Amino acid sequence: MERHLDQELTDLKQQLLKMGTLVEAAIFESMESLKELSIERVNKIISEDRVIDEMENAIDEQCLDLLALRQPMAIDLRFITMSMKISTDLERIADLAVDIVQRVQDLVGKPLLKPLIDIPKLTKLAQQMTKDALDAFVNKDAELAGSVILRDNEADKLRNLVQKELVNDYMSKDSSTASRAVPLLLIARHLERICDHATNISEDVIYMINADVVKHHPEKLK
Amino acid sequence: MERHLDQELTDLKQQLLKMGTLVEAAIFESMESLKELSIERVNKIISEDRVIDEMENAIDEQCLDLLALRQPMAIDLRFITMSMKISTDLERIADLAVDIVQRVQDLVGKPLLKPLIDIPKLTKLAQQMTKDALDAFVNKDAELAGSVILRDNEADKLRNLVQKELVNDYMSKDSSTASRAVPLLLIARHLERICDHATNISEDVIYMINADVVKHHPEKLK
Repeated sequence: MERHLDQELTDLKQQLLKMGTLVEAAIFESMESLKELSIERVNKIISEDRVIDEMENAIDEQCLDLLALRQPMAIDLRFITMSMKISTDLERIADLAVDIVQRVQDLVGKPLLKPLIDIPKLTKLAQQMTKDALDAFVNKDAELAGSVILRDNEADKLRNLVQKELVNDYMSKDSSTASRAVPLLLIARHLERICDHATNISEDVIYMINADVVKHHPEKLK
Repeated sequence: MERHLDQELTDLKQQLLKMGTLVEAAIFESMESLKELSIERVNKIISEDRVIDEMENAIDEQCLDLLALRQPMAIDLRFITMSMKISTDLERIADLAVDIVQRVQDLVGKPLLKPLIDIPKLTKLAQQMTKDALDAFVNKDAELAGSVILRDNEADKLRNLVQKELVNDYMSKDSSTASRAVPLLLIARHLERICDHATNISEDVIYMINADVVKHHPEKLK
């Protein structure tokens, strides 16, 4: 009853996609919890993180089994080892969504400091970069992966914008804003770190496709 | 002229240890740059990060070659795949040292807000956890790896202490402290994240030794 490697690789891909969908949802939900300052949403995200943790372990097991039993070569070998790295990045993204809602917990019951503008923008960017990084992986699309890496600058800029505004226009002017400004500042940092992970995934995707090391060599994208 | 797998695994271990030594030095140096508010040290750490980046790529290549050419089984297979995950964690720790010195850049030329007490403690903890995680890997020491995982709580506590003090005793009382307090608050976060990576490495080490999933199951350590 031996199944073919191709089928097993398709299964692995499906598992990663399923994990990706949950992770994207966690990012989205974390922002909704901030918009609504809803403790119910916060608790939901924290409890659902366990499912994502289990998926990382399951994917790692699947990969080790494939390596041991099929002894794959070339692109298949890189696909499997990169899947192990990607599952770790996805799990850490989910952890960052939990980090975000932990900051939201500190804000529940207090009036929001300011209307949310750049943080939702950064959230959208983080979600899209995560989605595109995984799509690039599934479709072996080096161009899409490259576009994710290039968008990382945008994330850095948005994060800086949020930070400067909070420090210069709020905390430095009125000390009573500090306890509400710091969680927002940290949320922007967490979001930017999600974008970093999407960038890491994209680097792995390009490596898988080209067996070429883009990682730490951004000039190769130009 | 074929060499034995054992020798190749020893080489791989040496490479990881070498990378670990550089990463530990980067953590130490980042704190010295904060103590001295020295722009020379800042620049040194940023320029040396490239060496660590290259090492991650080299280790990944080495692992892929071993998987393709030696088709290792059981503990050797796990050792090699875990090496790829560990090299990623080490590289991210080095990135966090760079994050720290970027916050130091924002502080150079300004008087320090307060004497540094808990941040150096957290630095020492981060450095020791990183060192112990790698030692646990090299010596296949599950007990030492377990002790790293248990110390992660201590890191969280120290980070919270720093954050609370900065928000409650400084920023909330005197708005003019914000621009000097925020970088310190972020440095504490970066250090705590280094401890998270040391914890991730230790989970991988235990997995490698026991083929058991401690990751996401801390209750197994009790």
